[in-house]
Amino acid sequence: MSHQILHVNEPTPVPPFEERGNIPDIRKAGLDPDFWYPLARSKDVAMGKARAVTFAGDPIALVRSKEAGLFAVEDRCAHRQVPLSVGVVEDGGIKCGYHGWKFDCTGSCTSVPYLDKCTLHPNSIKAYPCKERYGLIFVFPGDPAKADSVPFPETPAAEDSRYKVRTLDRRINCHWSFMHENLMDMNHQFLHRKLMGKIQTRFLGKREGDNWVEVDYSFYRKGGKQSLGEKVMIQRSGGAKEIKEADAKAEAEAQGIKTRDIMTIRTEYPYQRLRFWTAGSKDPALDLWNLYFPVDREQRINQTYGLMCIQRPAKVGFLLDVFWPAVVWFTNGIFSEDKWICELEQAAFDAQGEDWNHEIFPAIQSVRRVITSNSVPIRASWKGSKSAPEHVRARAEA
Amino acid sequence: MSHQILHVNEPTPVPPFEERGNIPDIRKAGLDPDFWYPLARSKDVAMGKARAVTFAGDPIALVRSKEAGLFAVEDRCAHRQVPLSVGVVEDGGIKCGYHGWKFDCTGSCTSVPYLDKCTLHPNSIKAYPCKERYGLIFVFPGDPAKADSVPFPETPAAEDSRYKVRTLDRRINCHWSFMHENLMDMNHQFLHRKLMGKIQTRFLGKREGDNWVEVDYSFYRKGGKQSLGEKVMIQRSGGAKEIKEADAKAEAEAQGIKTRDIMTIRTEYPYQRLRFWTAGSKDPALDLWNLYFPVDREQRINQTYGLMCIQRPAKVGFLLDVFWPAVVWFTNGIFSEDKWICELEQAAFDAQGEDWNHEIFPAIQSVRRVITSNSVPIRASWKGSKSAPEHVRARAEA
Amino acid sequence: MSHQILHVNEPTPVPPFEERGNIPDIRKAGLDPDFWYPLARSKDVAMGKARAVTFAGDPIALVRSKEAGLFAVEDRCAHRQVPLSVGVVEDGGIKCGYHGWKFDCTGSCTSVPYLDKCTLHPNSIKAYPCKERYGLIFVFPGDPAKADSVPFPETPAAEDSRYKVRTLDRRINCHWSFMHENLMDMNHQFLHRKLMGKIQTRFLGKREGDNWVEVDYSFYRKGGKQSLGEKVMIQRSGGAKEIKEADAKAEAEAQGIKTRDIMTIRTEYPYQRLRFWTAGSKDPALDLWNLYFPVDREQRINQTYGLMCIQRPAKVGFLLDVFWPAVVWFTNGIFSEDKWICELEQAAFDAQGEDWNHEIFPAIQSVRRVITSNSVPIRASWKGSKSAPEHVRARAEA
Repeated sequence: MSHQILHVNEPTPVPPFEERGNIPDIRKAGLDPDFWYPLARSKDVAMGKARAVTFAGDPIALVRSKEAGLFAVEDRCAHRQVPLSVGVVEDGGIKCGYHGWKFDCTGSCTSVPYLDKCTLHPNSIKAYPCKERYGLIFVFPGDPAKADSVPFPETPAAEDSRYKVRTLDRRINCHWSFMHENLMDMNHQFLHRKLMGKIQTRFLGKREGDNWVEVDYSFYRKGGKQSLGEKVMIQRSGGAKEIKEADAKAEAEAQGIKTRDIMTIRTEYPYQRLRFWTAGSKDPALDLWNLYFPVDREQRINQTYGLMCIQRPAKVGFLLDVFWPAVVWFTNGIFSEDKWICELEQAAFDAQGEDWNHEIFPAIQSVRRVITSNSVPIRASWKGSKSAPEHVRARAEA
Repeated sequence: MSHQILHVNEPTPVPPFEERGNIPDIRKAGLDPDFWYPLARSKDVAMGKARAVTFAGDPIALVRSKEAGLFAVEDRCAHRQVPLSVGVVEDGGIKCGYHGWKFDCTGSCTSVPYLDKCTLHPNSIKAYPCKERYGLIFVFPGDPAKADSVPFPETPAAEDSRYKVRTLDRRINCHWSFMHENLMDMNHQFLHRKLMGKIQTRFLGKREGDNWVEVDYSFYRKGGKQSLGEKVMIQRSGGAKEIKEADAKAEAEAQGIKTRDIMTIRTEYPYQRLRFWTAGSKDPALDLWNLYFPVDREQRINQTYGLMCIQRPAKVGFLLDVFWPAVVWFTNGIFSEDKWICELEQAAFDAQGEDWNHEIFPAIQSVRRVITSNSVPIRASWKGSKSAPEHVRARAEA
Repeated sequence: MSHQILHVNEPTPVPPFEERGNIPDIRKAGLDPDFWYPLARSKDVAMGKARAVTFAGDPIALVRSKEAGLFAVEDRCAHRQVPLSVGVVEDGGIKCGYHGWKFDCTGSCTSVPYLDKCTLHPNSIKAYPCKERYGLIFVFPGDPAKADSVPFPETPAAEDSRYKVRTLDRRINCHWSFMHENLMDMNHQFLHRKLMGKIQTRFLGKREGDNWVEVDYSFYRKGGKQSLGEKVMIQRSGGAKEIKEADAKAEAEAQGIKTRDIMTIRTEYPYQRLRFWTAGSKDPALDLWNLYFPVDREQRINQTYGLMCIQRPAKVGFLLDVFWPAVVWFTNGIFSEDKWICELEQAAFDAQGEDWNHEIFPAIQSVRRVITSNSVPIRASWKGSKSAPEHVRARAEA
């Protein structure tokens, strides 16, 4: 068989990503890929297997190889573009299931079975920085050169034995920004009236910076009954009590102790965190970390991975395990109501063709600012994507 | 919580609708919203509940409130755009199910639970004139200022005890104009050959005006058997007979008595009516009133509400009740054949991208003229709709 | 009833088709309609019935009439555009199921039941040259004037009693060009590793011309077991053996006898043929003829009709019948893997928006040249199609 002259093995270069910020319509904000994102649960990728995921429509194969460990590469064979993830994990690489081309963990094509031994073609595929933590597989979908300098989202409670962790794994058919607004706006307890009863929310204030906003709330019940699940999640420690005297307050604050029951929600682009402290405690009773990433290119579907860390009761920690089913039932109920309403919001956006939301609540106005000023444009097609092969990108730029 | 300065409560103004007429392609005719349209059956909206309907893609919430009666408002919360119809009917208004904003029957936002008492924002939603009649809920989707002067479609037979009424409630996936053509062109009996046998249709003539056309037919059976259902619907009264002599004819006509069996079909934009008289009678044996309205923005789905009024036999009126199941069976059969063929017409239109129909029958040529000269353009999106909030419309006009 | 003046009966003229060749993207190649294509199996069209098929989105009614035999016409009534194929086959023609317009096998409208006898309108529909062979119905979808001069795809083995024939009838949701590449590239045995074991393919060379390419292969098994089905399909005749000596080789070749086991695959636009000879034989053990045609206008769905001719063993021909179920099982398995991977290729193309394939194998490079240089552009809509009525085409050209 005659061969073409094939060139040295070098990975596809990655052009700099579009500039951040100033997205005119929040629902057309593209999530900035230059962050660490959990794209799957560890248990989703068995040894010797691959799994297909997408980040904003970019197909990524997560591969767990005996020899090469866990790695992430573009999920397409450089030859005929079928997903590598349907191929065979073998000898530290992955073989395409169609003609058997093989790629290693750097995305280099290392073998074509029907070619004589020769230098292979430069058209390797992209590899993604990848690490495993908290039972999740984190990938850096953006510019790999930045991966080391971009902070990894640390979630200490998820590794703290005083907490029990529930990993959230949910898909909602809406733009990810709706999720940030949903959790941040605690006035939406009205949505959960059947599960939570009549809750009056009090907005206590907000703090903010370029890429973050943090909002404090307190609550009181006006009617209805607290569900068991909710009670277990935010149980008051035995000694919990509000600290009302000014001196005691100052002292408590100096020690980092909350002087009243308080909920703080923080969007720090692109992550979101909710913590709830009972009065008199230093560590939150509930510490929830969430990330919502776009699955599809149009960013109208998002996948949530979350770590819901619930503090075990001081001496009877096992009780949390006993009541865990109530926690699961309660959070599933809340989540399904949130999913329902957020998908209705997306449907309205789709019908209206642009963001008509009329927001009057300052906390949400800040969240919107954080999102629109830290995001990137949505890329209309794969064509302009950095994952396109060189000759395609060259054509697109010409 | 800090508030924006909020302005006086005034409803969204409604700009004049697009000019009527001269639609170049009948399948791209938008039904003129400046008429009274039945958008639901009365029984579809229970007390204390709301129901979502759409007119040409515009979402409308029909609300039945103990305190405020039946009302119709735009089916979106001015805040986050989710349908109000999934909210809670309460104290003469409807509360959004997400954050609890409340709107009254005029579309004004009257309460936001987490705002202090203050004048609310002008961004109220649209309210629609609405009335209930014949077991149907009629809405005026166009310019509310015209609602009082536009005639309501009176259908006396539906309230006449000599008639038994069947309410038609049907959805077909085709442009509403196909429905007018289908009923008007009685040559399509060929479609119903299995249910009706071989019917020869005779076109007797047409009369027409700017917004209407009326066509007369007679029929005779060339073969096959009349079904029981058909027989019951257009039973000949005992004394029915054709009046053939010129003098007797003139006298009968002067009294409004038909001199032969006759069917008259009238499209009077936007409604359609079919009446069948047996010879020698003054009142029709069958009096059918129909309205087809577009459900979706593209107007490729229509909903029919109809009132099929069948005269009870003179002395044995109860017999109509006895044979009613045969009527239902027969009309359902006819309707499912019409649905099937009209959806095939729509599919052909979709594939062809424009109206290729080659009409040679004068009655249908007139119907097409009535429709194209009385309709409005289809609005491509909600954006240009009068239901968009002011700031969106301002942007669209700029 | 008054009539329009109606003109003489003449069929819609057929403008010359777009020029062939030079398609820049193989997946946007339109199959040239100026060939004979099998569009259905004979048994699919019962006597007195019609069947709807499409060629690249053009609807065609195949009609089997007692009086007029088998014929093919455009599948739309010239009146209201509904498919004629849902009508009634009667007296050598087909009657539209809606208003009963009747068309003959030339596409002329010969009767409108509610018109007096008169010359009919010129708006006849297109008729297609049509013939039946090998249990398949062949249609010439292009310019009818060329039908006689374009060679019919002869497949002698399908009528040779020494062969048993399996008719393939398969639909795959991908562009037809993927099918040619799939069969031509025998290196894709890796895909069938579970069914065929480890096969090493040897590319022996290729021959080519303007509209064809022919490639030779040999194989040897590196591991795994040959399935029974495969064994039956390409059984070695008792006397089969490789001929290795130069003199014997020359003599064998002069007689048309193969000197070794060999597979030859030939794409001769638009058909494809695969033959397998065992050493020492003159006639192939397996002779497979395939045609893939686009079903939809976008040409992203293809239908395969194939004739898989398997030579019966010399004296125990009945054994092929005995083992036929194994052949069926094996070919179905192979086919479902091919379907799966080709649909993944189409999905990648759809996501990428253009052909990113990076082909290095000379045989496939040639197939791609044959396809792109012999195809026509895909017609974006019916509008520009020759099947549109005259007034529509006139408008499109203006």
